Amino acid sequence: MKRFCIHTITTKPLIIEECLIEFPKRGVTGITIWRQALEGREWTDVRRQAADAGLDVVSLCRGGFFPAKTAADRQTAIDDNLKAIEQAHALGAPLIVLVCGAVPGQSLVESRKQITDGIAAVLPAAEQAGVKLAIEPLHPMYADDRSAVNTMRQAHEICDALGSPTSVGIAVDVYHVWWDPELKQQIDLAGKTGRLHAFHICDWRTPTMDLLNDRGLMGEGCINIREISDWVDAAGFTGHREVEIFSDRLWATDQRRFLDQIASSYTSLYQS
Amino acid sequence: MKRFCIHTITTKPLIIEECLIEFPKRGVTGITIWRQALEGREWTDVRRQAADAGLDVVSLCRGGFFPAKTAADRQTAIDDNLKAIEQAHALGAPLIVLVCGAVPGQSLVESRKQITDGIAAVLPAAEQAGVKLAIEPLHPMYADDRSAVNTMRQAHEICDALGSPTSVGIAVDVYHVWWDPELKQQIDLAGKTGRLHAFHICDWRTPTMDLLNDRGLMGEGCINIREISDWVDAAGFTGHREVEIFSDRLWATDQRRFLDQIASSYTSLYQS
Repeated sequence: MKRFCIHTITTKPLIIEECLIEFPKRGVTGITIWRQALEGREWTDVRRQAADAGLDVVSLCRGGFFPAKTAADRQTAIDDNLKAIEQAHALGAPLIVLVCGAVPGQSLVESRKQITDGIAAVLPAAEQAGVKLAIEPLHPMYADDRSAVNTMRQAHEICDALGSPTSVGIAVDVYHVWWDPELKQQIDLAGKTGRLHAFHICDWRTPTMDLLNDRGLMGEGCINIREISDWVDAAGFTGHREVEIFSDRLWATDQRRFLDQIASSYTSLYQS
Repeated sequence: MKRFCIHTITTKPLIIEECLIEFPKRGVTGITIWRQALEGREWTDVRRQAADAGLDVVSLCRGGFFPAKTAADRQTAIDDNLKAIEQAHALGAPLIVLVCGAVPGQSLVESRKQITDGIAAVLPAAEQAGVKLAIEPLHPMYADDRSAVNTMRQAHEICDALGSPTSVGIAVDVYHVWWDPELKQQIDLAGKTGRLHAFHICDWRTPTMDLLNDRGLMGEGCINIREISDWVDAAGFTGHREVEIFSDRLWATDQRRFLDQIASSYTSLYQS
């Protein structure tokens, strides 16, 4: 349970002050904060409140979305990532998760180049702030407009292209990568290269009714979560296991009961 | 236009007799027949009617779905594929497209093994009937229950494991593989190894509202269809370009007008 983290988006109907009360009651020790949860709050207040609640701020979600058709729009994206770095620094979040972005109709090769350039542009600020960046490969069903980085191999290639700075790594989310035949090998490589920056869990439901918001609670679907988690640990990862679920169905339920279910599911997953 | 083919499923509301009248009016020269369109018909009648309409029967959709939890269910799948081979032979279809199958919760490695075994079991009958088989890699979003073969690389690996029989190849559907960073290289390999058995086109819409039935008409989405088509041709493919679209939205429209739109979209795509 020492590694049990939940994303604020997982219980989207709760405001962050409620998360800070409800998460620790279920044995949660880490919180990943989505930027929209910060609206109207002083960042340093949230940092203090999280510490008072006994929660580590594991990461800030999310930066990225670097590709765009015009240079002006790409600069806007860079500026927004610089703001995210400031936020993460103020919150005491050691990491920003990058959903890298894609532009429908623009070649994925070009988008990956723009992603690499975008990360390079914000990297000095991130390093100065002591904030790491994690490229999150997204499932290929998001290659149209969310991410041109769809496999761990591609994430590694971007890290390589940047010269393998220690501050840039990978966020492994089982939902996005479970199908990848190279997964174990790429996780091993991420361990060896110091790039295992984050680990996210949820499940894949059959049938999945919505491309975005029909993810499952662990155990509701077909992903070999525990096996992948063991691969990640064997590769040297010791950070939090972050429960990140987008689900219209689960958001419509009582969120305190849902948190009980998450805790129960997490416990079953890791009890042996 | 000599390579213009449409799948019966693309105009699902039309019965096959209507397809045989309407397709040729738009310059279509090939038809791929889905098995449900044959219900209640004599296969040899359909063969004659297609020939009378001036349409080549390009392939039969679909065989596959080999993996199952029990040996008895795997045998049922094999029997069904043997029936599909009989059907294809009777129809004069030179090819069966395989949607290979997957079982939620069963490892993808095990499912791919069962797929390989299933193809091996039906291969002698296919060869005797002069019917080829095409493994269709399906998009990773179908890895839960439709196909454990999600990339062209995996399809090649299964062909290799079978000893590279000339009768087993690959069906390239842009919808499933457009995101794959290895796509061109794997198409080239398929050309060199004589495995380019079929080429399917449609488009990926943003946003996609349904995992199964929200595919787009060519031009409605973000796929670089013409570029992929040119790769396939450069690799030596000279067969039909098959329009295969599943869309609740388009099925709800007048199918004769929809066929006009398909012809217009196909013409734009290949006019230069």
